[in-house]
Amino acid sequence: MGFLSERSRFTRNDIEALDMVSEKLRKAGKRITSLNRGDPARYFPTPKYVIDAYINALREHKTFYSRAQGSIELQEAIVGRYGRMHNLKIRPEDVIATAGITEGLSFINSAIVNPGDNAIIFRPYFTLYTTYLRRNHGVPILERYDENDSWNVHVGNLRKTLTKLKISNKIKHLKYILVTNPNNPTGTVLRRDILKEIVELANEYGVFLISDEIYDEITFNGAKFTSVSELAKGVPYALLNGISKSYDATGFRIGYIVLPENDKKSTALRDKLGDYARARISLNTPAEYAASTAINDTKEHKKMAKHMVKEIENRVNFSTKLLSENPYLSIVKPNGAFYVFPKIDLPQLKFKDDVHFVTSLLEKEGVQVVWGSGFGEPSHFRIVSLAEKSVLEDAINRINDFCIRNAKK
Amino acid sequence: MGFLSERSRFTRNDIEALDMVSEKLRKAGKRITSLNRGDPARYFPTPKYVIDAYINALREHKTFYSRAQGSIELQEAIVGRYGRMHNLKIRPEDVIATAGITEGLSFINSAIVNPGDNAIIFRPYFTLYTTYLRRNHGVPILERYDENDSWNVHVGNLRKTLTKLKISNKIKHLKYILVTNPNNPTGTVLRRDILKEIVELANEYGVFLISDEIYDEITFNGAKFTSVSELAKGVPYALLNGISKSYDATGFRIGYIVLPENDKKSTALRDKLGDYARARISLNTPAEYAASTAINDTKEHKKMAKHMVKEIENRVNFSTKLLSENPYLSIVKPNGAFYVFPKIDLPQLKFKDDVHFVTSLLEKEGVQVVWGSGFGEPSHFRIVSLAEKSVLEDAINRINDFCIRNAKK
Repeated sequence: MGFLSERSRFTRNDIEALDMVSEKLRKAGKRITSLNRGDPARYFPTPKYVIDAYINALREHKTFYSRAQGSIELQEAIVGRYGRMHNLKIRPEDVIATAGITEGLSFINSAIVNPGDNAIIFRPYFTLYTTYLRRNHGVPILERYDENDSWNVHVGNLRKTLTKLKISNKIKHLKYILVTNPNNPTGTVLRRDILKEIVELANEYGVFLISDEIYDEITFNGAKFTSVSELAKGVPYALLNGISKSYDATGFRIGYIVLPENDKKSTALRDKLGDYARARISLNTPAEYAASTAINDTKEHKKMAKHMVKEIENRVNFSTKLLSENPYLSIVKPNGAFYVFPKIDLPQLKFKDDVHFVTSLLEKEGVQVVWGSGFGEPSHFRIVSLAEKSVLEDAINRINDFCIRNAKK
Repeated sequence: MGFLSERSRFTRNDIEALDMVSEKLRKAGKRITSLNRGDPARYFPTPKYVIDAYINALREHKTFYSRAQGSIELQEAIVGRYGRMHNLKIRPEDVIATAGITEGLSFINSAIVNPGDNAIIFRPYFTLYTTYLRRNHGVPILERYDENDSWNVHVGNLRKTLTKLKISNKIKHLKYILVTNPNNPTGTVLRRDILKEIVELANEYGVFLISDEIYDEITFNGAKFTSVSELAKGVPYALLNGISKSYDATGFRIGYIVLPENDKKSTALRDKLGDYARARISLNTPAEYAASTAINDTKEHKKMAKHMVKEIENRVNFSTKLLSENPYLSIVKPNGAFYVFPKIDLPQLKFKDDVHFVTSLLEKEGVQVVWGSGFGEPSHFRIVSLAEKSVLEDAINRINDFCIRNAKK
């Protein structure tokens, strides 16, 4: 390794792993359709009321450093949001603003994970969960979402894992259980009763709970979202969220961590996260003002969200249907977020694995998706279904042709 | 420690260590003058041509994720800047955009420092240098800027340290030498001949060099800035820079790392920094566009910089003069950045150390500065001299009265 650190091995973002390849292909004149990044603002313009608020902040010269842990205005906007949406009573200081979920993951893993510590993560998982855990030499314990049961969680298995850790006295090294709801990459919205059981287990075994709820307003096909904050009264937990997805403002880089409880763990972590925030000085200041407005103007937001989610529902269902016509793919229908996560029938195709499949798909067909291995789930790929139907149709037709052309025999 | 990690001890930003105290005092109705943060945009509005470019980017809905390592436009703007200013020929891919210098420090230390590795840092140093080094369990070797010799570097001492490390076979664990020019907190502009000797030593001993040049355009009192990039041809090194200070846009959070050379170390680090960037997805997108314009429109920029630097010169010299009238302080006159860094004659005062002095000053006089210990230099404090003269005059009068009132006997 030489000059680079041991730790630097854990920097991988599989979602962008092929970005340099697709850039090269584009430069060489090839037509590339990139459906790897979950970026709604690429397809749905960030709403005007938010852009106007951003412009006002700039005109008022709010371009100095912000308060490290987030402006009071932003903290209060988030307090208001959780009061309205989930009847949760928190204080402004329970909120720490972060540059997206990624900075939240970076802060929390650095703040609580010692080398060799464990964290329970359900797979398939958002690829950066393990990156930030492993960068701190933490070791994931991978529980399953069960594809054969619509990506549901079998809470009995989670209990078994926790019991084993308790018996072997390793549970003190288990730093957190992380759930994602709605899920990336599967698009599953977790059922309230299952979430409730997970919360109860976290409580029973004294393990800190983290809930990544970045897609909380993007649910459809009749699914109903439950926030962990509605269930975890008295249980130490953190929410990860931000304005990137539900507020359609990815490029602002405004996320946040909420620590609603006042037990010893939550309190220690809250203080420490303030230190982490101060050690990176500030987020983008005018974006924080725009984010406050995005959250506070509920009337404008609802209008935007209703339209966007309806369109996403159409596009995800359209992609799902078209991909389902492919005899070499099988799909659990998503009801949240904006991903489709097909299983590839690899034994019937001329590819040794999902990485091979996805790499060839980019090189031969110019369609960029993400290999399932990046989410801890080989033999799958993730396709972002945010583009206009004509773009999705063309890309998926190319995927389907590609499979047929590369079938064995 | 319990829930928190060992590593989380290293999150300190001494510059903001008293922020929660000053917030509380303000809430209680006390008048507080905070002169702790080096934030020009708080006092000099970010220029209109930059704000306009930012607004245009927003109007054009550039609010999606940016390219992880920085937009091509931004990379090319930085290529242009170094060509113009230092006759340096680099490629766009030699630039990695970061959320300020802090993210650059975070990436580089994480990428190359293994536990127990060393880095040579000159003290007094910017407080976060050691924070990010130690967070990765690196151990600083502190060389000196010599206050008795106008904060100059005695290169002979640096050579002795390097020779000792070589003889004891520890030099392979020395990951970098870091210089800051102009310096924070002393405001010293390093002489070209001294910089040249440092570059030669780095080359001779095969140690990677890092030069933090964030204040590169803020020099005065006749001082002339030399970039390491003018001297380090063929020597592996990184520049840390950004638009926060010279372009008066702190709250944008746009910084960058430049790796101009193509040796093995530079190449490995460049690739790895791309991975680090991808693992945090994107910077603020419209701010990147504004930053490109800030850098590219050299005519508008020069106008702004000339005015701002002249004013900073006035204000720093004004503060220096007024503080010099205090018989309990002594000051090396700064000629760059916007800090004054007085030495406190503690034996003559009723304070046990600089932390005690600075804490009391805030509590009794409502003036917030930073203790010298935070820069590795006890018995000093740092005061930001960016405010209007009337504000500086009032604050410094209070400091001077405070010293006289707290003199022994």
